Amino acid sequence: MDAYQRLEDHFEELSRLGEVISVLRWDDAVMMPPGGAEARAEQLALLKRMHHERLVDPRVADWLDAAADEELDGWQQANLREMRRRRIHAASVPAELVERFSRVSSKCESVWRTARSDDDFERVTPHLRRVVKLKRQIAAAKAEALGVEPYHALLDLFEPGMSPERIDEIFDEVARFLPELIEEVLQNQARQQQPKPLDGPFRVERQQKLARRMMEELGFDFDYGRLDTSHHPFCGGVPDDVRLTTHYDEDDVLRGQMAVLHETGHALYNLGLPSQWRNQPVGMPRSAGVHESQSLFVEMQLGRSRAFSRWSAPLYQEILDKSGDAWSADNLYRLKTRVRRSLIRVDADEVTYPAHVILRYRLERAMIEDRLQIEELPAAWAEGMEELVGIVPDDDRDGCMQDIHWMSGLFGYFPTYTLGAMMAAQLFEAAREKFGEVDEMVEVGEFAPLIDWLGETIHSKGCRLQTDELLEEATGSVLDPEYFRRHLKRRYLDA
Amino acid sequence: MDAYQRLEDHFEELSRLGEVISVLRWDDAVMMPPGGAEARAEQLALLKRMHHERLVDPRVADWLDAAADEELDGWQQANLREMRRRRIHAASVPAELVERFSRVSSKCESVWRTARSDDDFERVTPHLRRVVKLKRQIAAAKAEALGVEPYHALLDLFEPGMSPERIDEIFDEVARFLPELIEEVLQNQARQQQPKPLDGPFRVERQQKLARRMMEELGFDFDYGRLDTSHHPFCGGVPDDVRLTTHYDEDDVLRGQMAVLHETGHALYNLGLPSQWRNQPVGMPRSAGVHESQSLFVEMQLGRSRAFSRWSAPLYQEILDKSGDAWSADNLYRLKTRVRRSLIRVDADEVTYPAHVILRYRLERAMIEDRLQIEELPAAWAEGMEELVGIVPDDDRDGCMQDIHWMSGLFGYFPTYTLGAMMAAQLFEAAREKFGEVDEMVEVGEFAPLIDWLGETIHSKGCRLQTDELLEEATGSVLDPEYFRRHLKRRYLDA
Repeated sequence: MDAYQRLEDHFEELSRLGEVISVLRWDDAVMMPPGGAEARAEQLALLKRMHHERLVDPRVADWLDAAADEELDGWQQANLREMRRRRIHAASVPAELVERFSRVSSKCESVWRTARSDDDFERVTPHLRRVVKLKRQIAAAKAEALGVEPYHALLDLFEPGMSPERIDEIFDEVARFLPELIEEVLQNQARQQQPKPLDGPFRVERQQKLARRMMEELGFDFDYGRLDTSHHPFCGGVPDDVRLTTHYDEDDVLRGQMAVLHETGHALYNLGLPSQWRNQPVGMPRSAGVHESQSLFVEMQLGRSRAFSRWSAPLYQEILDKSGDAWSADNLYRLKTRVRRSLIRVDADEVTYPAHVILRYRLERAMIEDRLQIEELPAAWAEGMEELVGIVPDDDRDGCMQDIHWMSGLFGYFPTYTLGAMMAAQLFEAAREKFGEVDEMVEVGEFAPLIDWLGETIHSKGCRLQTDELLEEATGSVLDPEYFRRHLKRRYLDA
Repeated sequence: MDAYQRLEDHFEELSRLGEVISVLRWDDAVMMPPGGAEARAEQLALLKRMHHERLVDPRVADWLDAAADEELDGWQQANLREMRRRRIHAASVPAELVERFSRVSSKCESVWRTARSDDDFERVTPHLRRVVKLKRQIAAAKAEALGVEPYHALLDLFEPGMSPERIDEIFDEVARFLPELIEEVLQNQARQQQPKPLDGPFRVERQQKLARRMMEELGFDFDYGRLDTSHHPFCGGVPDDVRLTTHYDEDDVLRGQMAVLHETGHALYNLGLPSQWRNQPVGMPRSAGVHESQSLFVEMQLGRSRAFSRWSAPLYQEILDKSGDAWSADNLYRLKTRVRRSLIRVDADEVTYPAHVILRYRLERAMIEDRLQIEELPAAWAEGMEELVGIVPDDDRDGCMQDIHWMSGLFGYFPTYTLGAMMAAQLFEAAREKFGEVDEMVEVGEFAPLIDWLGETIHSKGCRLQTDELLEEATGSVLDPEYFRRHLKRRYLDA
């Protein structure tokens, strides 16, 4: 057997182990009673250790070297490239450091859970300092192996092909136009008719029924996945068995429904990955940003469009058994495109969301590059919020303690949310050009051409291309924030 | 580190892997959409291969040898004994044979699924012949390692300490008194008041509510487990996260409820295993027969008693919103103790059930010992049914093709159902002696003393003792079929 074939066999096993971990995590969040927590943690720790051991197996390095001289087609070469990248991320960090980091970040996360409720940033400070210190060591180790700067090395795990310099360029551009645009949008909204609130309560069974219907209309096949509920919505499972979750609020039907649209975008990506490369690195989603672009394509570009509200308003009325002005397409659209300066990222609208992300990106990069100390975080947070969002939190609970990411050791991920939003806008504009009257299609619920086009241009490509190549093939251009600006302007100012 | 400690670490990992397999199997039966089947089969195959590889690891043999000379307490010695047994079952069979058997039995099971519907035994014959042929090779390999006869070696996996000679003795005794006892019971029933049918349909949500209430009253803590639905009821999960399932029939409320009682008996055993030996072989259930004794203690001894019907009748009435004669304690009791000569084992009552099991035990032992050829099975089945149950099937679908066991390669398991029934009767009689007025306790729903006593005498013992020692400590006697005969006589003839 040649080295490349050995690699495929080896990475297939790794993928199966990853699938098992994914199913157990879904079960953890959706099904598991509290008594199972301890055993589950041990099960996951064992599986992750097995996964890691297999990835850093010295034979993999030998096979990767040998396979470089073998005759491979384009997909196989891309597969090899992705195998190499995965291995570098796993093998460049000493096992002892990985383990120490895992302990320290678990501890920090658990302290944070109570410290956040108590608004006690000081309690979390020493733990977060330890997390950042070890993360910097991890970043340094990966940086050396990848030949890039430390923050770049962390970013590479989630958004390969993207550099901090390019993000600076893009985010600086957004930071230049966004504060002014937010102000204009708010003034514009103030002049327009105010949305009427939707009067609940909304029974969970009806919300579920509505959610399933939306998913089906978008092409989700329940023979290949499930919809359940969990505290935070997510999309898990495996490519032929995608497990979506949402959270139903009895007083706010839009919240759960928009989360379902978002997760359905993620799900359609997973369901559409190239089946002939299933369980190979090249058959997996391109990046966190591209994944987010698919969820935001469905939620933001499609789901919050005026046309989608026209199509979905009768469904809301019928399934929730509601009528009246509040349930008109126009009112639903106004509710779904409401812009506010707000403190909490996860509740932010699509206009202010990038401001939240840019703040986090700048701060986390500064922490990794040792330009910002943990005790300076609250002040830097307030300053950044003032500049970017135009609102300042009264406390740390709704400030720098609101997100789990840093507390659990996740650095380099935040930018992908906004990169995804930009890709989504760029893709939707390309779809508009390709199909012409997209709004007319959406108004009658003709989503299949759009979803099929995403399938052809994005989902079925897996990791065959780099992100910029992928976008260029799909839209004629590499990532360009101008599409996003145009989208916001069109939806929030020109209408 | 000493050899024994290495073994504990190693078997802990094995147990964690086993837990993961158990959770995935539960998910498979309860949650998984059909599209996930292929990936799940691959995940399970990988995990089982990893489990097997770790169990046959040559270092385990060395550690087992070395640990024999180390100073160990009683629990540790019992642990070592169970480790040795597990390893013999895994290591004595050549890997190539295990794999061939797995393929051949999967094929046979899948042919059987359609052949059974078509009542086409000939179609399944060549496949079952292959299964039995390989199973005989497996039995021979294990027999050599264990120093026992081939069928004994198969039995040892499920019911260690039990020999075919002892089963012969016990089952021959039962076969002597049972046909006559069945006849007497039927005549007795014919003279008594006939039970009134329960008029449905019964909404699944109400059946669920009733089932949860029963489980809670029996001491099941939903912080440590779940109740769901699946095609066939089962009890899975892990000791702190026990996953029960049942199947609700809208027209037959007793069916689902009795299944829940049965599975709750299994669940309480798992929940009560010794926590300080969790994830060690000695901390696991003693045997298939002992496990079945716990389910049958709750379902048959307790759940079908007159006292339990007196206690539960008001709950049935209240939660199902029913009233009238059919819902009286007496009528429910009559329904739950109805005896019939029937063709299908899984639907059989507790009086005729052993007859079904004895038939299967005799036939499967004859197949393994090459005294019965596959093509002779239908005739032997009819003859045995006539002799033991007193009724003969018209076709093979409801005859020798009704059970999945042989088709999927499971031999040596059937006897444990009836061994469990006997242990349950023996345990209940011991409880009656210990607590005196057990019926009075059950009538007022005072189950805790009984369940706690099972916890002390059975659940918390894990595999510390051999089955006969366990029974002798709990009841003052090794397994004795006389308890079972007395139970049947008391419930079905003397009342």
